[in-house]
Amino acid sequence: METPYFIRFFLIISIAFFIFGCSTSTAYRITNLRSSSVINTPVHNSSHHLTDTPLHPLDPLTVPEINKIRSILSAFEPFLSSFPSINTLSLDEPDKSQVLGWKPGEQLPPRRASVESVLDGQTHLLTVDLDLGVVTRHVVSIGSGYPMLTTEDQTTALEVLYSDLEFNKSILARGVDFNDLVCGSSSPGWYGADEEGKRIVKVQCFSGQNTPNYYMRPIEGLTATVDVDKREVVKITDTGRDIPIPKETNTDYLYSTRSQFPDVDPETNPMSMEQPKGPSFTIENGHIVKWANWVFHIRPDIRAGMIISQAMIRAENGEYRSVMYKGFASEVFVPYMDPDEAWYFKTYMDAGEYGLGATAMALLELNDCPRYSYYMDGVFASADGRPFIRPNMICIFERYAGDIGWRHSEIPVMGFDIRESRPKVTLVARMVASVGNYDYIFDWEFQTDGVIRIKVGLSGMLLVKGTPYENIYNISNIEDMTGTLVSENVIGVVHDHHISYHLDMDIDGPNNSFAEVNLVKEETSLGQSPRKSYLKAKRKVAKTENDAKIKLKLYDPSEFHVFNPTRRSRLGNPTGYMIIPGGTAASLLDHDDPPQIRAAVTNNQIWVTPHNKSEVWAGGLLTSQSKGEDTLAVWSARDREIENKDIVLWYTLGFHHIPCQEDFPVMPTVSSSFELKPVNFFDRNPILNAKPTFQEDLPRCFAASS
Amino acid sequence: METPYFIRFFLIISIAFFIFGCSTSTAYRITNLRSSSVINTPVHNSSHHLTDTPLHPLDPLTVPEINKIRSILSAFEPFLSSFPSINTLSLDEPDKSQVLGWKPGEQLPPRRASVESVLDGQTHLLTVDLDLGVVTRHVVSIGSGYPMLTTEDQTTALEVLYSDLEFNKSILARGVDFNDLVCGSSSPGWYGADEEGKRIVKVQCFSGQNTPNYYMRPIEGLTATVDVDKREVVKITDTGRDIPIPKETNTDYLYSTRSQFPDVDPETNPMSMEQPKGPSFTIENGHIVKWANWVFHIRPDIRAGMIISQAMIRAENGEYRSVMYKGFASEVFVPYMDPDEAWYFKTYMDAGEYGLGATAMALLELNDCPRYSYYMDGVFASADGRPFIRPNMICIFERYAGDIGWRHSEIPVMGFDIRESRPKVTLVARMVASVGNYDYIFDWEFQTDGVIRIKVGLSGMLLVKGTPYENIYNISNIEDMTGTLVSENVIGVVHDHHISYHLDMDIDGPNNSFAEVNLVKEETSLGQSPRKSYLKAKRKVAKTENDAKIKLKLYDPSEFHVFNPTRRSRLGNPTGYMIIPGGTAASLLDHDDPPQIRAAVTNNQIWVTPHNKSEVWAGGLLTSQSKGEDTLAVWSARDREIENKDIVLWYTLGFHHIPCQEDFPVMPTVSSSFELKPVNFFDRNPILNAKPTFQEDLPRCFAASS
Repeated sequence: METPYFIRFFLIISIAFFIFGCSTSTAYRITNLRSSSVINTPVHNSSHHLTDTPLHPLDPLTVPEINKIRSILSAFEPFLSSFPSINTLSLDEPDKSQVLGWKPGEQLPPRRASVESVLDGQTHLLTVDLDLGVVTRHVVSIGSGYPMLTTEDQTTALEVLYSDLEFNKSILARGVDFNDLVCGSSSPGWYGADEEGKRIVKVQCFSGQNTPNYYMRPIEGLTATVDVDKREVVKITDTGRDIPIPKETNTDYLYSTRSQFPDVDPETNPMSMEQPKGPSFTIENGHIVKWANWVFHIRPDIRAGMIISQAMIRAENGEYRSVMYKGFASEVFVPYMDPDEAWYFKTYMDAGEYGLGATAMALLELNDCPRYSYYMDGVFASADGRPFIRPNMICIFERYAGDIGWRHSEIPVMGFDIRESRPKVTLVARMVASVGNYDYIFDWEFQTDGVIRIKVGLSGMLLVKGTPYENIYNISNIEDMTGTLVSENVIGVVHDHHISYHLDMDIDGPNNSFAEVNLVKEETSLGQSPRKSYLKAKRKVAKTENDAKIKLKLYDPSEFHVFNPTRRSRLGNPTGYMIIPGGTAASLLDHDDPPQIRAAVTNNQIWVTPHNKSEVWAGGLLTSQSKGEDTLAVWSARDREIENKDIVLWYTLGFHHIPCQEDFPVMPTVSSSFELKPVNFFDRNPILNAKPTFQEDLPRCFAASS
Repeated sequence: METPYFIRFFLIISIAFFIFGCSTSTAYRITNLRSSSVINTPVHNSSHHLTDTPLHPLDPLTVPEINKIRSILSAFEPFLSSFPSINTLSLDEPDKSQVLGWKPGEQLPPRRASVESVLDGQTHLLTVDLDLGVVTRHVVSIGSGYPMLTTEDQTTALEVLYSDLEFNKSILARGVDFNDLVCGSSSPGWYGADEEGKRIVKVQCFSGQNTPNYYMRPIEGLTATVDVDKREVVKITDTGRDIPIPKETNTDYLYSTRSQFPDVDPETNPMSMEQPKGPSFTIENGHIVKWANWVFHIRPDIRAGMIISQAMIRAENGEYRSVMYKGFASEVFVPYMDPDEAWYFKTYMDAGEYGLGATAMALLELNDCPRYSYYMDGVFASADGRPFIRPNMICIFERYAGDIGWRHSEIPVMGFDIRESRPKVTLVARMVASVGNYDYIFDWEFQTDGVIRIKVGLSGMLLVKGTPYENIYNISNIEDMTGTLVSENVIGVVHDHHISYHLDMDIDGPNNSFAEVNLVKEETSLGQSPRKSYLKAKRKVAKTENDAKIKLKLYDPSEFHVFNPTRRSRLGNPTGYMIIPGGTAASLLDHDDPPQIRAAVTNNQIWVTPHNKSEVWAGGLLTSQSKGEDTLAVWSARDREIENKDIVLWYTLGFHHIPCQEDFPVMPTVSSSFELKPVNFFDRNPILNAKPTFQEDLPRCFAASS
């Protein structure tokens, strides 16, 4: 991918030079504000992936498989004259029954790929059967929405724009040296008929002069709409010429240029989680993680980033019991709260429009993940259908953070001096998506007590808006500000992040039910008790989807259980898992506002649907520019039966973000999480027999320099 | 304290033997269900505390000071004939202005002690001036409520009860061997006139036969009410004779008896947070913690457990700026949700009735706290006024958990391959209160980015109720259950935990204001934008206390800022800290229910009051049996002005707990936390200049056995 990328840029630059006669010392710096153009390893550099073989029904497509798919597609009749753009190409999972029925050593179920591609502005959806060597399904989409944008789509937009006279005039008028120009393409959302029927992106630009952090130097009010299939500029709006480009002062964040800054501050002594006997987990066949009492399958995915499958935990009798068939981030909705022409469309759906895997860069060892981490590469297809490797895209590590798994101190009577405590050790699978400016740290944390914690951390850069103001004292109507002044001439615009998870829970098997265990205040009757009131847990099993569309209520609290109605604990309690909500920030936009229609998954915090192979992406399969015709809310409007069915739980983790100066020029990480927790799943505390730490368990360590 | 404790028990046993002629092989095991009788070190064993000298105005009372106070009290006229019971004896903090005005090296402000004591059933509140050597204030309380129960109060109740014929008959009728009897005394709450005017405790008993975990073997339905001052049994109710005592099966949790169990499971390799160059923090003068950019004072407290004072963080210019004058857990409200005679009164206020410091046992090294922790002793006074040492009561450690302080990956165009990431290292101060069955893990975590995370973990044992049922299939009316069947004949009763924090915020000085920054949905006007709606942050500064009584609302969200109205950031933003709520579970009891009147602090999640030296304990100074006349809700009903005043923020962290089988026989830790986070306090990201970790920073480690 890289070579053509650069060549093409130089071609564009030549055109620009011809038009404006600029210095030829350096090329434009061009970037894709929210793009998939991260560094990839060409396959020939990663010979160990050249002969990868799938060993499990859910293993991702391999390099040889992707090459084969490309051959099949090249020979497919509609693509004979012109090979389409491959927007996504990924494993078409076998039916759940096939996966569940498969045993190690057996032949894999038929390997198939799902392909979303674009040719002449039309979206082609295909299924390729690798065993048969043919396309088994081919549909040309007639609904709204397009596949994920490719790097090529986005660079096309820039090529087109850079040869546009009006655009070049605008840049000149802002006084930006073309050598410093950094432009990025951004998905446009959907806002009615004007922009329907064509694949477009919105391009906005920045000054990269004297800073690696061009995000903080926006060329405010300049927005170009480009049709990427017709390769033409649809519209340029340029309303911000009176807004200065913010200065580069204080924007740099690189350690290598730290000499500009004061000393390292604050400084702490080196510290590390050490495991002299190595980590306790093993990776089998490339994708099966075994650790403590857990086993699960993990794979990189171009859209979801990271998919956890078939998570099972060992019971006291040694049996591995199913907890979750599949879990992943299905959509990320990021609406900015500014109705201006240059801002209204920033209502991103990062998974469907950009891909969380497509934007996941190689992790930085020792800093993104601790020592002794295991790194897993992503194997994906680029727009031309050829495979590429995203190295070190996922890390897996064990964590000991000084926390306590369980404990009790007893009152020492009769020599009865009990102090028992067990350290808490967990396993983390991590991936970071850098969707343009923002960095999303996705963690799945497994605990030996059966809890799964799903956590999202936010770091990276704010998306900022230029303003004439350098100080809020100069602002006459501060009520009109759509964000906080975070630096001179820089507004951090208010926005939300809503991360919607698809959680196909299979508690002891596919057929489960969903119960709301409501805590209800009861009043005592006269003379019954000195108490007037107390709470009682009232369990109600959801019959249909409408019973399980949950808005959380602080003053009407419930637990939310997924349980197996055919399996009971030793005592007769339903065996299940509960979801413990966290990061509860609801989307407050009008339900009929276009972005909210598309992100209607955020209308509730919890939904439950019957398992349906086609209901994977909460914002719809074809998300970009979609009208919201294929969302969770639409599927779920049928109000299907969900009792004792194979059901999927959906949970949305939310953040409201009113920026502050501490978020400039790069944001300290803010995190939220929710949990899946066993509830009467085990007959007793599953870590009762865990071992305490003794002095002889601990390593002897020396400073590396000693 | 220990010697008389044991001697006294043997005396009681003799009486019991006389009455019932039991075997003399072992004594009764007696314990205090929620008591302060934890293991203490007699002072002569800790010679290093014998000469402790206070070095800071907020340093706790020392051994010499406590001895001096006892002398002063012994010579105090009202106590000449009979020395009172010393229920609490602790530092009477100097006025805030004196503390803030004091500089290291200067003479300390006058040292004073607050004493709450009981003599002949009357509560005496005293202030002792150590410099003057006299009692400077003496008030006999005429309102409701008593001081914290002492160990002696609680053992008195047991002595009285064990010589009671009716009680002994009841125990015999249950078939419990007296050698196996474990009884505990419990605070009675307040439920009207019947029990007013006398200091009482409720005693309940368990079988300790064949298990260290007697909590799981309740003698259900037997409750004795004992007047501890008159030393008489007020009432015995015995309604549960048809309820079997649950068996000991599966109740043991000791590692030393693990041979009863299967192998260690789940097992993980040894793991440790290693710091070959040692921790980065220092403890100066015994109580000042300096770490990275933070400095704060910490002291053990018999009631609050752990008090953080004068927390300050270093700004870019090197100046230490004030964040919080004082923070601590002010009350812990734990209502059980069962109106039965043996259960209705279990609406504990653990700080005011038992003391979070009084119940904090010595921490277990390497398990409760990681290697390289610093341990701090508590120095307290026992009921006879003599000092004792609670060893290793607080630990302080640095934490690296593999998390990321901030990061960004940049799209690699033009050789622009940026991947920057900073590991996150924090400092934790921890204390664990074992208030009878429950263990509360209290953490204060300081981050270099200015965030303070306040976290509570719950572990230990459930308070369980006996039941005739062994399986829920046998239960005819399951709707009447007040909890979950967690083992045969054992119900884990539904309950809440509400932990209310007193947070005397001093952002850049004492005078602060409180603002609610409300996110309000705005509708766009016709033609203004393709968007219909967006959110806008609207800031409203609270004028009086009523403006700041906050119930959190998911669909009407706000940020809550404490800020200094006289100090602005470089850009003119108010400099402040916000509270990020977490663990949001509200108390749902009737506001006029006696326990809720006493715990009215839980009527809102957030309150703001003007600083007032007498408003420290959210449930009132004299909490035990109080009618709720002296609570935060009462003080705050005056609706005082809070704008640009020295203000205190109160936050309540809550848990609803519907027990499950996994909580048996000891509960895996469940945690929640809230945060104090800088908001325009710093002019930019305060950890921008933090250093990444390099390979050469990491230690070389070997297994201890290698």
